[in-house]
Amino acid sequence: MPHSRAAVRTAGGDARVALLNDYRRVREDSEGLCRSLEVEDYCIQTMPDVSPAKWHLAHTSWFFETFLLLQLHPGYRPHHPAYDHLFNSYYLTHGQPFSRPQRGHLSRPTVAQVYRYREAVDAAMVELIGQAAESDWSRLECLVVLGLNHEQQHQELLLTDLKHIFACNPLRPAYRELPCADRHEPKLQWLPFSGGLQQVGHVGGGFAYDNESPRHKVWLEEYRLASRPVSNAEYLDFMADGGYRQSRLWLSEGWNAVQSGGWQAPLYWEQRDGQWWYMTLGGMRPVDLGAPVCHVSQYEADAYASWAGKRLPSEPEWELAASALSPSPDTDNLRNAGFLQPMPGMGSDGLQQVYGDVWEWTASAYSPYPGFRAPDGPVGEYNGKFMSGQMVLRGGSCVTPANHIRASYRNFFYPGDRWQFSGIRLADKL
Amino acid sequence: MPHSRAAVRTAGGDARVALLNDYRRVREDSEGLCRSLEVEDYCIQTMPDVSPAKWHLAHTSWFFETFLLLQLHPGYRPHHPAYDHLFNSYYLTHGQPFSRPQRGHLSRPTVAQVYRYREAVDAAMVELIGQAAESDWSRLECLVVLGLNHEQQHQELLLTDLKHIFACNPLRPAYRELPCADRHEPKLQWLPFSGGLQQVGHVGGGFAYDNESPRHKVWLEEYRLASRPVSNAEYLDFMADGGYRQSRLWLSEGWNAVQSGGWQAPLYWEQRDGQWWYMTLGGMRPVDLGAPVCHVSQYEADAYASWAGKRLPSEPEWELAASALSPSPDTDNLRNAGFLQPMPGMGSDGLQQVYGDVWEWTASAYSPYPGFRAPDGPVGEYNGKFMSGQMVLRGGSCVTPANHIRASYRNFFYPGDRWQFSGIRLADKL
Amino acid sequence: MPHSRAAVRTAGGDARVALLNDYRRVREDSEGLCRSLEVEDYCIQTMPDVSPAKWHLAHTSWFFETFLLLQLHPGYRPHHPAYDHLFNSYYLTHGQPFSRPQRGHLSRPTVAQVYRYREAVDAAMVELIGQAAESDWSRLECLVVLGLNHEQQHQELLLTDLKHIFACNPLRPAYRELPCADRHEPKLQWLPFSGGLQQVGHVGGGFAYDNESPRHKVWLEEYRLASRPVSNAEYLDFMADGGYRQSRLWLSEGWNAVQSGGWQAPLYWEQRDGQWWYMTLGGMRPVDLGAPVCHVSQYEADAYASWAGKRLPSEPEWELAASALSPSPDTDNLRNAGFLQPMPGMGSDGLQQVYGDVWEWTASAYSPYPGFRAPDGPVGEYNGKFMSGQMVLRGGSCVTPANHIRASYRNFFYPGDRWQFSGIRLADKL
Amino acid sequence: MPHSRAAVRTAGGDARVALLNDYRRVREDSEGLCRSLEVEDYCIQTMPDVSPAKWHLAHTSWFFETFLLLQLHPGYRPHHPAYDHLFNSYYLTHGQPFSRPQRGHLSRPTVAQVYRYREAVDAAMVELIGQAAESDWSRLECLVVLGLNHEQQHQELLLTDLKHIFACNPLRPAYRELPCADRHEPKLQWLPFSGGLQQVGHVGGGFAYDNESPRHKVWLEEYRLASRPVSNAEYLDFMADGGYRQSRLWLSEGWNAVQSGGWQAPLYWEQRDGQWWYMTLGGMRPVDLGAPVCHVSQYEADAYASWAGKRLPSEPEWELAASALSPSPDTDNLRNAGFLQPMPGMGSDGLQQVYGDVWEWTASAYSPYPGFRAPDGPVGEYNGKFMSGQMVLRGGSCVTPANHIRASYRNFFYPGDRWQFSGIRLADKL
Repeated sequence: MPHSRAAVRTAGGDARVALLNDYRRVREDSEGLCRSLEVEDYCIQTMPDVSPAKWHLAHTSWFFETFLLLQLHPGYRPHHPAYDHLFNSYYLTHGQPFSRPQRGHLSRPTVAQVYRYREAVDAAMVELIGQAAESDWSRLECLVVLGLNHEQQHQELLLTDLKHIFACNPLRPAYRELPCADRHEPKLQWLPFSGGLQQVGHVGGGFAYDNESPRHKVWLEEYRLASRPVSNAEYLDFMADGGYRQSRLWLSEGWNAVQSGGWQAPLYWEQRDGQWWYMTLGGMRPVDLGAPVCHVSQYEADAYASWAGKRLPSEPEWELAASALSPSPDTDNLRNAGFLQPMPGMGSDGLQQVYGDVWEWTASAYSPYPGFRAPDGPVGEYNGKFMSGQMVLRGGSCVTPANHIRASYRNFFYPGDRWQFSGIRLADKL
Repeated sequence: MPHSRAAVRTAGGDARVALLNDYRRVREDSEGLCRSLEVEDYCIQTMPDVSPAKWHLAHTSWFFETFLLLQLHPGYRPHHPAYDHLFNSYYLTHGQPFSRPQRGHLSRPTVAQVYRYREAVDAAMVELIGQAAESDWSRLECLVVLGLNHEQQHQELLLTDLKHIFACNPLRPAYRELPCADRHEPKLQWLPFSGGLQQVGHVGGGFAYDNESPRHKVWLEEYRLASRPVSNAEYLDFMADGGYRQSRLWLSEGWNAVQSGGWQAPLYWEQRDGQWWYMTLGGMRPVDLGAPVCHVSQYEADAYASWAGKRLPSEPEWELAASALSPSPDTDNLRNAGFLQPMPGMGSDGLQQVYGDVWEWTASAYSPYPGFRAPDGPVGEYNGKFMSGQMVLRGGSCVTPANHIRASYRNFFYPGDRWQFSGIRLADKL
Repeated sequence: MPHSRAAVRTAGGDARVALLNDYRRVREDSEGLCRSLEVEDYCIQTMPDVSPAKWHLAHTSWFFETFLLLQLHPGYRPHHPAYDHLFNSYYLTHGQPFSRPQRGHLSRPTVAQVYRYREAVDAAMVELIGQAAESDWSRLECLVVLGLNHEQQHQELLLTDLKHIFACNPLRPAYRELPCADRHEPKLQWLPFSGGLQQVGHVGGGFAYDNESPRHKVWLEEYRLASRPVSNAEYLDFMADGGYRQSRLWLSEGWNAVQSGGWQAPLYWEQRDGQWWYMTLGGMRPVDLGAPVCHVSQYEADAYASWAGKRLPSEPEWELAASALSPSPDTDNLRNAGFLQPMPGMGSDGLQQVYGDVWEWTASAYSPYPGFRAPDGPVGEYNGKFMSGQMVLRGGSCVTPANHIRASYRNFFYPGDRWQFSGIRLADKL
Repeated sequence: MPHSRAAVRTAGGDARVALLNDYRRVREDSEGLCRSLEVEDYCIQTMPDVSPAKWHLAHTSWFFETFLLLQLHPGYRPHHPAYDHLFNSYYLTHGQPFSRPQRGHLSRPTVAQVYRYREAVDAAMVELIGQAAESDWSRLECLVVLGLNHEQQHQELLLTDLKHIFACNPLRPAYRELPCADRHEPKLQWLPFSGGLQQVGHVGGGFAYDNESPRHKVWLEEYRLASRPVSNAEYLDFMADGGYRQSRLWLSEGWNAVQSGGWQAPLYWEQRDGQWWYMTLGGMRPVDLGAPVCHVSQYEADAYASWAGKRLPSEPEWELAASALSPSPDTDNLRNAGFLQPMPGMGSDGLQQVYGDVWEWTASAYSPYPGFRAPDGPVGEYNGKFMSGQMVLRGGSCVTPANHIRASYRNFFYPGDRWQFSGIRLADKL
């Protein structure tokens, strides 16, 4: 299902070394993100959408074990007979996954056992990559690259879920010491884009998920995009103007969510002595007025746009505008923000904060591109079966691994979801 | 919000007479559909989505009272002070609607009182249409036409809801004596359509809802459509092949619905002594093998298409194919099927059963057309606020009033909904 | 299961005539209670505990059909094949009852058909009573008397459920024109009762349910009872003192109910312009300060008692005190209150308002008396299987048929139930 | 609220030493029970009724901190400002407890931090006991003894909850290596007891909870009790005879639980290759036929009794029979079973397995004894507010600390609860 990462698929030494390096780096990055955790932090599930950190570490290993080792490594035996059940996320054609809302009910395997599972998988993967037959190479490389991208998705989810876990705790513990940023929001500009008959979707030449293809033609009217995401200061204006109390601004389902959820601000916001604070991975902080608003649902994004007399961009509008840019070298958020070892710059002109601040809700439902067909076999369940009821987000957030970001990337969540690092970029007619 | 019904908006005598005739006919049709009901049948609500028949009769009157009489008729006083609350469906900017799932908890007003409400509204509407000032005419005509189209929607919903009410009753009462049809399914043909840069949306010149506009350009690849909807015989093949037991055929949400709802067949189907029967408005009948499969969710439609190696059409694909046809004079289903006074023919060639058999699920999420803006005021809540989470159906069913059918019409329901007269037409690449 | 109504069970002419008269009167009383209803009022179910009026009329007939006619009348054929399913309440050893929360989903059989069902059952019952063989007489009489007491229970439930139905309707329709009573609450006295080794339970000599037996010994300490139930005026003092806001007054489950239900007053109470009103069978009325507080749960009764520094009486305490009194001839509430044709007097001294004002919550869980065994067969399900989780109420309410009231009667409901005519009598140590 | 543990309440050195020894032993026992746990095992909550092990350890410390140290120790400062909220179980008059179903959502405080909390509390408690003024001694001793009994209750709950946690894990980990016992069930005898006017409730002279008083008179008919609890072998006969499929055997609420819960066997039972196994604290084992059936609800106990033609004993029947016995020295289950350091013997004659095998469901609702009044202040919430909806269990189980067992002890749970070590002893008339 993944499109080829490299133009030339050969099992030559360089390719093996490169893949091994990629493998080791990504796998180490996952563990690096957990370095500041206590054993207890690995085990908790605060809502059905959240998975415990140790589950993320084990599930990503299961992926390599199930789709690589047990398929291509002749001598490999499953590390533990029960793990195929416990760490299968949702691959029904492969087996019966353990109940998702119960992932936090498992004290065993312990964290140490999960790390031993990772070690065993890693050792076998290194063997496999080093020794795979030439004839298996192309398939192997494809699947390894898919597995690494899969693991990078879970790196983001791991941080997203930890934020929820720490935010649900009245002690509001910090995931890690993080510098306070008091940003100045750049001046908002409205950038024009020409429409016409255009092409969107993965161009080829690097990795992309199946859902980014086929590349296809779309007709667009000319449009404008805001140069940067909506800031916390702007969102506070919406709140102060009664945004959460005026049904006319909201989609019907959005209004139901406001009522039933008692929404009065983005997720993780709290009023203390009249001032708004929010939970961050560095603990509770006063709301940074210049930073992009984050942890809003698509309902809130849409209501904000209605209030502002604007709208959300469609997928193709976003992608065409962003295609001109590529993620800058200093967008390696996980490293920059101190999540791994060594914050994104903002271009001075044109579109800003496209990659690496907040995922940007679009107005587009997550649907198959014309001609899309999910691959056969369990891996075909990766993306295709979720093409119902969810909305597309574009860009990437401050917890997305830098080399996991690209213009054609289609992230997708339910319109009411708020625990992702999701924000708002406005669009308008020209 | 409705687009003009007539090119020339004058309050001349002919226009008044024509509007009065339309008004009377549509209002009488609603009551005609209730002629065979017992008083008890008017009061029942079998699930939150279903409304009691008397509620439909009252709500459609409330629409005229609220958006016409209280706006434009100087001497009009509300018929009853509580009805504005009781019969407001979902217009939050107008007032606080009575709780939808409790519509079946109201024995009062009685059926007779609801008919008196209709009489009072009708008398005042006749006055208003006859006497409205020239300067109000254009707005008046627009709103009356909207109100009549609204009432026609509720005529379909009334029958749809009555079917659910009768089907939930172990006595399985018939709504009305209906002839048994044992249809021969026409031979399935695959009809090619050219793609390219096309235009979809309401053309103008007659009534259309706001959500059918603006007319706009779309790019389509060439495609094929099945000449007729999937038949019950074909759907039984899917069932016999384990369609409801193979997760790989289903969208993730669809599979959840199959599991949690225990789905094994379309809604209203029952197995008796090894044979499949289904509930019809004429009572329980053996499944008519040649008739289009009906009362399937979009999940089932999508799973069937996967099983058949095909897909569902997109909105524009459907609309462009159907635009060449117009609803035939013998598509007046409500009359033809004995619902009013005097069944649809099927063309012999080309697309068949497009209008008037089953609403056809598309693959398209119900989203605003590019440039769409809901009108200001409460009437703006009619369509726009529901553009989230629902899927578009096209065509029209055997219980859709004939003159309520057109190529650009966008019906919309949740993908799990099954109580509508909804079926499946397949699409494929050329 | 019922204990003998008459000492001498003979099928002599007098006994037959007496039983026929009883039968006719009770059956007519049920229909008399429905005289002021519109057809629509018969069909509504506003919560799972409530049954539609026509269901009560049909179920009581099903009782005679099932346990009498089909057992003892040789020529009787079931009136309709589906009624045994539709109108079985909870007799699982007899058959599969129709789903209780769906009783309001049935428009058919119509009200007229239900009355025809009653007629058919009545005609056959008259035959059966007139012609039953001497050898069947004792069993027949027992079952008829049980059926009539069962029907009297449903007469109360019918009015109780209609009150809920009318109270859920924003129109607050009156069940019937009823005189306004502005009562003066009698002065509260504390009446002493001696304890010791006592006997409680049905004495014999008239009808009683199985759960009132066996008569058995209990040891009681001496105690005092309030001469009359807690009045609305007194309950308003509890409310004004923050009764609904102080967790310390409440049982844990009671406090949960206060929180989750948003309780701030008894059921059916509404504040209008600072004054408390409540729904009555005669429509909305200002709260009658002198009348007994009604429509309170056992949790509220217990919290009120805690607030007052008192407690609720136990079953035996209540029964021993009440045994000295018998329901007075003017306690025929249904007739007196205009529910049938022709209000309870209050004794001047001693215990007052024991029978016929409000059911009085006790502190006793509904448990089997020592030595209790439910009868064999379906009729054994009448009372015994409910002896878990419910609390006993004693006395009788303004909607209890007068001759359905006796000192040993054990009514039972869940401690959170409020739609019954339930109130509070306080007890204390001597 | 606790009744005096010692006849003479003096603050003499011996009393202080004795209390200190008791304090240290009980506190150490709690930690001893956790010795075999992994850090992860301390954090998990598998249903709202279950609490994480670290919560038990912290809450019992909070009890001493809140009701002793902050009341009586002049220099004591709260260990952590948030712990009063986090570790308050249900004392609403003291403060706002953290949401019970979210106890498993807290990774912090860590297990190590909880142990430091215990240390700090223990140090201060040792100081307090050693230095308390003579005038405070009586109150102090009372509260310390209450706190120790409270902690012993939580020792049992800790093991009960750990069993649930391990049983929910597909790996079925063992809490600890435990010897397999294949017991021979003793022969069942029916032992007669005389009735008459008797006294039940706490006699005085040692510790008892408030709910065991006042001691009071009851009248009992003569009765018989089974000499031992129902065995697994006997319960399997009930299952084989269709016990879980015959509604007539069940209380109405019990039958609902069977249906909705899909009950077919006691909790923790699994069929493997036709044989029944169950989860134990030592892992999965074949069902020990001679052992008492355990992990049954009161509904199952009642249904079993109906099937056997017997009944459950009432509280007084149980207490009078058991009063003759006292827990034997070898009933120190937690020690004997290897839970702490070094199984209960069974008497050869008379009542057997009364203390220390399974808690025995009675037929008695958990109600206040005549004259009961909960103490003032937060400690009054300990028992009294739960006297609604629950049933009494008597005896003690294999995980009850031996010196926490006595004839008058009233344990209470909801009739549908199954995760406690609860079993069945039958009663009958003489």
